[in-house]
Parts: sequence; C-alpha cells; structure tokens
Amino acid sequence: MKGNIVVGQSGGPTAVINSSLAGVFSAAKALGVKKIYGMHHGIQGFLNEDLIDISEYVKDDKDVELLKRTPSAFLGSCRYKLPKIEGNEEVYDKIFEILEKYDIECLFYIGGNDSMDTIKMLSDYAAMKGKSQRFMGVPKTIDNDLPITDHCPGYGSAAKYIATSMKEIIRDNESFGVEKPTVTIVEIMGRHAGWLTAAAALSRGEDCDGPDMIYLPEVTFDVDDFVERVKKLAAEKSSVVIAVSEGLKLADGRFACELGNASDFVDAFGHKQLSGCAAALANIVAGATGLKTRAVEFSTLQRAATHIASLQDINEAFSVGYLAGQAAEEGKTGMMITIDVKERNPYQVGYSIYDIHAIANVERPVPAEWIINDGTDVSEEYVNYARPLILGELTPMMVNGTPRHLVLKK
Amino acid sequence: MKGNIVVGQSGGPTAVINSSLAGVFSAAKALGVKKIYGMHHGIQGFLNEDLIDISEYVKDDKDVELLKRTPSAFLGSCRYKLPKIEGNEEVYDKIFEILEKYDIECLFYIGGNDSMDTIKMLSDYAAMKGKSQRFMGVPKTIDNDLPITDHCPGYGSAAKYIATSMKEIIRDNESFGVEKPTVTIVEIMGRHAGWLTAAAALSRGEDCDGPDMIYLPEVTFDVDDFVERVKKLAAEKSSVVIAVSEGLKLADGRFACELGNASDFVDAFGHKQLSGCAAALANIVAGATGLKTRAVEFSTLQRAATHIASLQDINEAFSVGYLAGQAAEEGKTGMMITIDVKERNPYQVGYSIYDIHAIANVERPVPAEWIINDGTDVSEEYVNYARPLILGELTPMMVNGTPRHLVLKK
Repeated sequence: MKGNIVVGQSGGPTAVINSSLAGVFSAAKALGVKKIYGMHHGIQGFLNEDLIDISEYVKDDKDVELLKRTPSAFLGSCRYKLPKIEGNEEVYDKIFEILEKYDIECLFYIGGNDSMDTIKMLSDYAAMKGKSQRFMGVPKTIDNDLPITDHCPGYGSAAKYIATSMKEIIRDNESFGVEKPTVTIVEIMGRHAGWLTAAAALSRGEDCDGPDMIYLPEVTFDVDDFVERVKKLAAEKSSVVIAVSEGLKLADGRFACELGNASDFVDAFGHKQLSGCAAALANIVAGATGLKTRAVEFSTLQRAATHIASLQDINEAFSVGYLAGQAAEEGKTGMMITIDVKERNPYQVGYSIYDIHAIANVERPVPAEWIINDGTDVSEEYVNYARPLILGELTPMMVNGTPRHLVLKK
Repeated sequence: MKGNIVVGQSGGPTAVINSSLAGVFSAAKALGVKKIYGMHHGIQGFLNEDLIDISEYVKDDKDVELLKRTPSAFLGSCRYKLPKIEGNEEVYDKIFEILEKYDIECLFYIGGNDSMDTIKMLSDYAAMKGKSQRFMGVPKTIDNDLPITDHCPGYGSAAKYIATSMKEIIRDNESFGVEKPTVTIVEIMGRHAGWLTAAAALSRGEDCDGPDMIYLPEVTFDVDDFVERVKKLAAEKSSVVIAVSEGLKLADGRFACELGNASDFVDAFGHKQLSGCAAALANIVAGATGLKTRAVEFSTLQRAATHIASLQDINEAFSVGYLAGQAAEEGKTGMMITIDVKERNPYQVGYSIYDIHAIANVERPVPAEWIINDGTDVSEEYVNYARPLILGELTPMMVNGTPRHLVLKK
C-alpha cells in the first residue's frame, strides 16, 4: 500500500474490540504502511479531523499485548450513523476531502450493524464518484447478530463473562435456602437477539445445573405463565435463578421492563433505552408469591470485562482485523471479514470476505429451533455452537492488584 | 484433640469463605481430628442435625485447592441468629445435645458480626453450665466492619472485584462522549460501613483516574449538592462515573434509594433490603440535567466473584481458619482470630486471637478522617490501607471455559 490508512471503532465497545484494532495495526505495520491513523471517536471524530497517529501510542509488541488486554474502544467510539447519500452529499464530500488531505488509501471500521452501514455508504459513494479509496468492515458486536459470519468477535468474551458470573451467582443463591428459596432474576443485554442471554446456558456443567429458565427476546413473553413456572420451581427447589433478556416483549408489544418503571430514554440511533426488566419481574414475582427476590443486571460489565475475556475470541478478533488489512492491500473494498467454522468439535476456524451489502442493517436472531421448552431454555445445539467461543484465557497484566490498560491521552 | 469438630458458615458468602473452611479443615487434618463435620446451612442446619462429613468431599490436596477457588458457602449458609439465652434454654440445650451426640469438642463458625454473636452466646452458655466444648470464631465479611481485626477476610477480594470492574466501567464510559457525557452511577454494597464503596478508589493508577466522586454511608447524603456537583463535572468532562453506597442516607433519615421506588422488604435479621440507590440517583440526575445516565449495581457479584479473588485475601482467609483450629487445640474458646498488620509497605501480616465479647455485634465504620472533599472521596490513607489486600491472583481451574467449583451434593 502506498498511501496511509485510518481505523475507527464504533458502537458499543466489547472486551476485544481493541484486539481487532491491534490486528489492523499489525497488518499495516507488516505491509509497511507509513501512517496508521486512528479516528478519535469514530466517524464523528473523523468529520472533525480528530485523528491520532496510532504508532505514537503502540510502540512495540508489549503495547500490542497491552492493547489486546484493554477493554472498551481504545480510540473512543461513537453512535453516529451517516445520513443517506441523496441530499447529504456534503457530508460525504467532507469525508473524502479529509481522506485525500491525509493521503488515506483505506478506511477500516470496526463495528456492528450500524457501523457496517457506514462502510456500505462510503464504498457506494466511492463507486458512484469513481473514487479510489477502499473501505473495509471489521465485525464486532457482543450481540452476535451480524449475518453471514458464523459469529462475531466480542460475543465469545461476553458469553464467557456471562457464563462465569452466572455460575458464581447460582452458587451464591444456593448458599441459603433452608426455609424459602430466593428467586434471582438476571438481566442480560440484547435488544432483539437472544444470543447473550442464551450464553447463560454455558454455565452448565458437572458442577452447575445452570439457570432454571432462560428467556430470549425472540419469543413473546407471557407474564402469567412465567409466574406460574416460578411458583412451581420454588416449590421444588431451594434456589431459583432465571436469565432474562433486557428486550423481552409482551404480546401487546410493550417491553417487559415497562411493567416496572423503566425510563423512556431513546439513544442516538433511536433505540429505546431498556433497563429494569429483571427488577420489574422480581417485583411481580415477590408480589405474587411472597418469595424473596433479587434482580441482577450484568450491565456494561458484560461488554467491558476484558479481565475474563476468551482467548479464542481475542485471537479471532485480532485475525479479522489483520485479514481486513491484507484484503485492503489486495484491493478489496466494500466488504467485511467473516468467520467460518469448519468443525465445532474439535473446533476449526477459517475466515472469508463478504459483500457489505448483504450484511449492513441485517440482524440475525437465535434460530427458532434452538429455543426449547416453550421458550424457557436453549438447546444442546446452541451450547455446541457457543462452547468453543469461550475457551481459553489471556492473563491480564496485573499492576497493583488490577489489570493494566493502554490509554489514549490526548 | 480427642473429639471431633464441626464447622459452619454463616451470613452473606464471600469469595474466600471457603478458603477459611479449607484452613480449619487442613488444621484439623494436621491435628489428627477423627471426624470433621460440616453444618449444612449453618447453625440452623445444625439444629436439624443436618451434618456432613467434610472428608467425604475434600479428599486430597487438589480438592483443597478447588475449595479455595469455589465462591459462596460450600457448606451452605444461613441468616439465623440465636435467641437470647434467658427463656430460650431449650435451643441451647438442643445444640449441646447434638454436640455430645457427635462427640464434638469444638465448634467453628465462619462469619461476620451476627455470626460472632453465635460464638459469644454458645461460649457464654458453656461457661454458665460448665460445659467443656469450645467455640471459635473465624472472621469473614466483605463489609470489613468487624472491630479489633485490621481487616476481614473477604474484603480484599470484594475490593479487588470492585476496583477491577470500576476500571472496566470507567474505560467503557469514556469511549463515548463526543457530545454530551454519560453519567454512570455505580452502586456498591455496605449498609452502614463504606469500606466496599471506598474500594472504588483502588481503580486509580497511572492508567485510570478512578471515579469522579465516591459517596460513603458514613456521611449524610445531600441530593441537591450531589446534583450540583454532577452538573459541574459534566460541564468539564466527557465522562462522569460516580460510586455510591447502597446505604446512603438523607438528613431526614430516609435511605437515598427511597427517592426511587425501592422495595420495602426486610430480611430475616430485620435489615431493610436496599436496592436501587444508583437507579434512583440516575433518574434524578437525568431529570435535573437532561444528561444520559446509567445505573450499575455490582450486586451479589462483588461477594461471589472468586474468579478474580485476591491471593493475599485467600491466603489470609486460609490462615485465620487454620489458626482457629490450632487455637482450639490449645484449649481456647469464645475467641476470634484477628489479623494484625505490622507494616503496610512492604506488607507484613500477623495474627492474634481476641475475646469474642469485644467483637460480636460491634460495627466499625470507615474512619471519618479518611473521608475527604466534603464527603465525596476517600484519602490516600485509605488507599495505603487497602492496596496490599487486593494484591495477587489465584488462577482459577478452568474447565470448558468457566472456573470449576467444588460442590456439595447431598
């Protein structure tokens, strides 16, 4: 590559989004790219010419290793979605002006559905205007809802955090229970797709039965049926733990969290802010049964807990970044690196590249056939799918009792 | 020791309560004790003669290591407080009857304030009636509020989890912030003592400024002043993160969480169930400022996250258990093992033994002089006190991507 490159990170961070950044950076270094720019706060920062020279922060292999162990978006993220091209050409012209000014030959964007839309729009605009710059998507989302790719970097680590924490919560919940059981309801992220909530099933093993029920947003939620099932479990067991998605929806279209006093906030992408589904259900169960209930929300920790990230996930996140760098060198544009799994046991992974038009703005739910027991659990097929993604650990670099991170200080 | 022993675990579990059990067990093994009984669910289970033979579960050194890596109370816990002796002698007679039936010479109870009261009552009763059985307390509480001892086993690991997770949350929160900052309020356990909330300060270091404010329950909470301070921070910074104790109290005596829709549940010890302090404050800030807010509760994870437990804490928890075993052999009764710190840097620890009467039912708050900046932070003295307690890790035994635990299956 003769010109420079720029990399951005976008959307909700993950535990391994920086491993993908490390991958793009390492490929560019290997390819002899002169300047490896980073967008400070994604395309939104780029539009303000807020760029950094990543080599000033990542100076050696130790820094690459530290970057891989750093949660959240090292470069800063944003939730800015490009407007449609028609009628907004000035935004696109501005972007290409900056690309030319900094002699940038390829733009890499690490992100999920909304971010892949950015790559689609920019490569479409370049094609329309006969521009030579190339645009590569690097998949990232804890939600695991991108199509085509077998799974998404970031998911494995979130799933490992969820499985590990779920096991610890179950163990804690089981410690009491001489008299009445405690019903603990754990709320897990995932607005439309239940991939993250399903990961609660990965807590199961010889030493743990896992949650008693798992509710995904793919299935309409019936409160009365839920309460009846909890009553039955509480009559049989000294500890009841249930995993629920933040995005559970009732038959009338309301979110389950609206049964409580959820806020009506809407984020910058127009997504309704959800929270309090577990709290709302815990209150309903307490009222209906008199049992002690507890609501737990994994909250942002499930996407930020790099200290217990999956090594498999870190390695794959690095690979999709690295391969995006190589693909750009080969002249590819308007594409995203995908993960192909050839065998699940023993796990064998490969990578491909795919047209961004088939990926942007498409959401992939958990397959209906993997949701079992009247929508209260996930099947062994899901566990076989997800288990390899949470294997292995990358020891944090501990300093003074906490993991050390690489930090961008502007 | 000619007779047998029995060990119980009581109150809220910690990440290292099983390390203390491993310590008592190992001492008893070394002393040649014939039967090492465990109370299934504390003194409440004991009253039902619900005993197990721990040697049937802990068979070799590997099991001891696995026990040290297992969160929550391996034996099961309870929240049962013995009634006062006067007028309730039948409860005490029942306990001594069971002790005699199983030829138990010494009873060990691993717990916090309420549990130490059990040791006090039982040793008082034995003295009153001329009984020969001995009773030893083993300190345990994430709350760190037992007097006499420098700190309590369980606290270091909870503090390490809080510091690590706080760092990850701050990193996550900082990733956005091109436009308006997000205000994240993190709720930490501790009804009356702010030790756990103070641990948020341990997230500070070269790579992290830590939370912007830290509110302990030792100081009366002023909502208006709080909102003003948040406004000021939000005007200056692109990310605001605040640590608050679940037990924050207003000048009128109400808990801060009552500003929201907290539940009115009361637990078996008559403690009011607190939750939702962060949520209540996040709503207030959102309403007053229009900023995006987020509430995070560490919930039971802060006492159950053995996967990131402090090695120093695990070793000390084991030691207090082991030394309790030795002290009983020497004929001591009605006492608790305490931790003495001779030097903080480099850290030098020793152990003593102390009369249980000075400990039971006494709560030790964070010293007033360690709470600084008008009650919005903790001092360097606190950090120097707590830093050594969170050092070191004990690698979990990972199986299929999650930590393996030792489980009591009756």
